[in-house]
Amino acid sequence: MTRGKFITIEGGEGVGKSTQIGRLRDFVAGQGHEVIVTREPGGTRRAERIRELLLEHSDEAMPSTCELLLMFAARATHIENVIRPALARGAWVICDRFTDATYAYQGGGRNLPIDNISTLETMVQGTLRPDITLLLDAPLEVSAARANARNAAAGTSDRFEQERRDFFERVRAAYLARARQEPERFIVIDATQSMDAVTAAIQHALGERLLNSSAS
Amino acid sequence: MTRGKFITIEGGEGVGKSTQIGRLRDFVAGQGHEVIVTREPGGTRRAERIRELLLEHSDEAMPSTCELLLMFAARATHIENVIRPALARGAWVICDRFTDATYAYQGGGRNLPIDNISTLETMVQGTLRPDITLLLDAPLEVSAARANARNAAAGTSDRFEQERRDFFERVRAAYLARARQEPERFIVIDATQSMDAVTAAIQHALGERLLNSSAS
Repeated sequence: MTRGKFITIEGGEGVGKSTQIGRLRDFVAGQGHEVIVTREPGGTRRAERIRELLLEHSDEAMPSTCELLLMFAARATHIENVIRPALARGAWVICDRFTDATYAYQGGGRNLPIDNISTLETMVQGTLRPDITLLLDAPLEVSAARANARNAAAGTSDRFEQERRDFFERVRAAYLARARQEPERFIVIDATQSMDAVTAAIQHALGERLLNSSAS
Repeated sequence: MTRGKFITIEGGEGVGKSTQIGRLRDFVAGQGHEVIVTREPGGTRRAERIRELLLEHSDEAMPSTCELLLMFAARATHIENVIRPALARGAWVICDRFTDATYAYQGGGRNLPIDNISTLETMVQGTLRPDITLLLDAPLEVSAARANARNAAAGTSDRFEQERRDFFERVRAAYLARARQEPERFIVIDATQSMDAVTAAIQHALGERLLNSSAS
């Protein structure tokens, strides 16, 4: 059995990840692969409960190290109970955010020490890394406007989404810095294009990097 | 303001920790100190919710690294929101289990890499360590009999308490090994003595190590 491919989708709020994930799932399934879609933090029952702890409002201050450890605790059970078994049976895994989001949000956004993140990455993941990471990138004006419209419509506003503008600027910069460091893994896509143009760019990039290589 | 003292109580199931903690609180308060009693995992609302995740039965396998990260996530919020503020205002903190329990249960009991535990200890605690650790030690036959009687009476049996006998033997050995490594911090007390004899031994040791030194 050939191991499945592990694809992660990253990007700030309002860059259109959800729409593209649905289209990507259909595209990969159309190639004849089993495909599962999952998300972080979350992806298992226990990890979703950890996600609730991360997102809820509380009078109890959330130490940044506590947040980081909860993120990786959720990731540990997600990897062992969902991602590794799926890849091992040959399924492709599409994950809405993964460890690059931790580098971007906790590292870039909250200025947590990068060394702590990479230590935990190795502790939890061993050598597991995504095969391809799609980074949907847009200037803050574009993504913030979309995220605000969505939150207003849903009446939701979680702790992260109330963070200040400069926080999201640091998140975007950290994502782009990681993409520059690992160009062989990242595909950076201009998310200010139309939804259909983004979809076409994703399918073109995957065709070049994954589908051809698995056929050869 | 003189910083308060940080006292932890360690030991396996059924060694009589709860009784001794109550008596120790009264003893320290009787010396004129503000004293708070807390426990791990737990000690804050968020940390108690993490504790629930750790103890509940679940069909979802609990990866040992997930368990370890949840332990230290709970510890991070407990330290920042309870322990450090209390010590800073001069209160004495008595904590029912702390990081030595992680070394004993996750390290000794579950054979998790000690390096991972010490890495997380530094990440979460910085230089914070207990001033005194009271280890209530008893052979497995004694503590297991007491713990079984208590669990049968309460109708409770959590995930940890169902672990095998050799697990608890490893826990006890790991506790004793830590006590040998740090004799200046640990006080090992024979918990097979009567409750009153254990209390007397604790008060005698504290008198020698803490009360005299803070008066000098």
